[in-house]
Amino acid sequence: MTYCVGLKIDRGLVFMSDTRTNAGVDSIAKYGKMFAWEKPGERVIVLLTAGNLATTQAVVSMLDERTKAPGERTHTLLDTPSMFQTARLVGDTVKEVIANTAPVGQNADAFGATFILGGQIKGTEPRLFLIYPEGNFVEANNDTPFFQIGEVKYGKPIIIRAYEAGMSFEEAAKLLMVSFDSTQKSNISVGLPLDLMFYARDSYKIGLRKRIDSDDAYYRAISQGWSDALKDAFKRLPDFTG
Amino acid sequence: MTYCVGLKIDRGLVFMSDTRTNAGVDSIAKYGKMFAWEKPGERVIVLLTAGNLATTQAVVSMLDERTKAPGERTHTLLDTPSMFQTARLVGDTVKEVIANTAPVGQNADAFGATFILGGQIKGTEPRLFLIYPEGNFVEANNDTPFFQIGEVKYGKPIIIRAYEAGMSFEEAAKLLMVSFDSTQKSNISVGLPLDLMFYARDSYKIGLRKRIDSDDAYYRAISQGWSDALKDAFKRLPDFTG
Repeated sequence: MTYCVGLKIDRGLVFMSDTRTNAGVDSIAKYGKMFAWEKPGERVIVLLTAGNLATTQAVVSMLDERTKAPGERTHTLLDTPSMFQTARLVGDTVKEVIANTAPVGQNADAFGATFILGGQIKGTEPRLFLIYPEGNFVEANNDTPFFQIGEVKYGKPIIIRAYEAGMSFEEAAKLLMVSFDSTQKSNISVGLPLDLMFYARDSYKIGLRKRIDSDDAYYRAISQGWSDALKDAFKRLPDFTG
Repeated sequence: MTYCVGLKIDRGLVFMSDTRTNAGVDSIAKYGKMFAWEKPGERVIVLLTAGNLATTQAVVSMLDERTKAPGERTHTLLDTPSMFQTARLVGDTVKEVIANTAPVGQNADAFGATFILGGQIKGTEPRLFLIYPEGNFVEANNDTPFFQIGEVKYGKPIIIRAYEAGMSFEEAAKLLMVSFDSTQKSNISVGLPLDLMFYARDSYKIGLRKRIDSDDAYYRAISQGWSDALKDAFKRLPDFTG
């Protein structure tokens, strides 16, 4: 499976994704699911992918090749006038890929893929979208400041509780690590290494970009520290008295 | 939806279930999902239900009516020689109900139901089973000392982390309340009141049985206390330093 989160905070955007892909437990591979394009000083576009790997790879390739073919740059990721138009471009590409794969009338569910798209284009706000396999999309706002795709349930309660719009990038990274640790402990089809990226509002360049392996000292400290903190917090709650 | 947990501890068995049933968000009703039968001094049988309400009600009615019809008591819940035979009786009843509902060849998924069965019959150990819609079942052991049915994901990480075989009934009740609180905060189709039951090993009678409403002082203390404790524990973890 997959677990990816895109989080909108006052200071910008934070992205995290796992790297495990599987077709059955006997067919596990490692693929990055975080893709980024930038035109420094002008725009940053980040895409996280979940779902059928052939579909997501085709979508990224199509988006990517278009950015590379100078003669066809009219509708590329680096030329869309707004994040809304960027989301529409990604959505249309998804629809196109799935339509090309699924014969007419065939159930396209198996080829489905879901995306988190975030970024900022000069002159507009940072924006964050969730793009469905049907190509339509919704945008994050103050009530729903984050999107998750893939195995979303295990890691959701802590985000709901600890997210604050005013948090720092460091706190947001900590929050996502806790969320990924809970998910990864509960579902073996979500696995390390993790990819982490910061985008600072109005910077128009990719911020920190880091791959976190299972031997990463900070991740291990969080993983162990969170387990201990949970057990400790649990012990300190009053016992049931009937 | 539904959330039910059966937990095996050294001291016995602990059960908790929610009471919300829904067929779409515009059709919500309250139904208990915890059923118990006892022959004091000889046996206690507890059943938790999830899935199609018509199926679970029919299964419970059939099990129940059989216990009430004196002439047919050969194969009832109160006469099975072992918990294994009890699980088989419940499994066979599930299969029978689903087969009666689903026309030949029709997909029976919509009529599916899953059960947690626990209890103790004099001369044997307390046992805990998970019974599938197909009528087959698995038993809890030291490696897997609990079963969840329904909306199982949100509330699982805390059980994995805080469960200890040697815990008291009061600690187990606290653990389940935290697990139900996390679930209920994340999925509105799981709702209060909750039903809680203790069964003490070798007691052969139902222990504490309590319905916990949303105005229950202890539940509110746990719900608020856990939120605060999580936020606090999260704040005390070291921040990411890149």
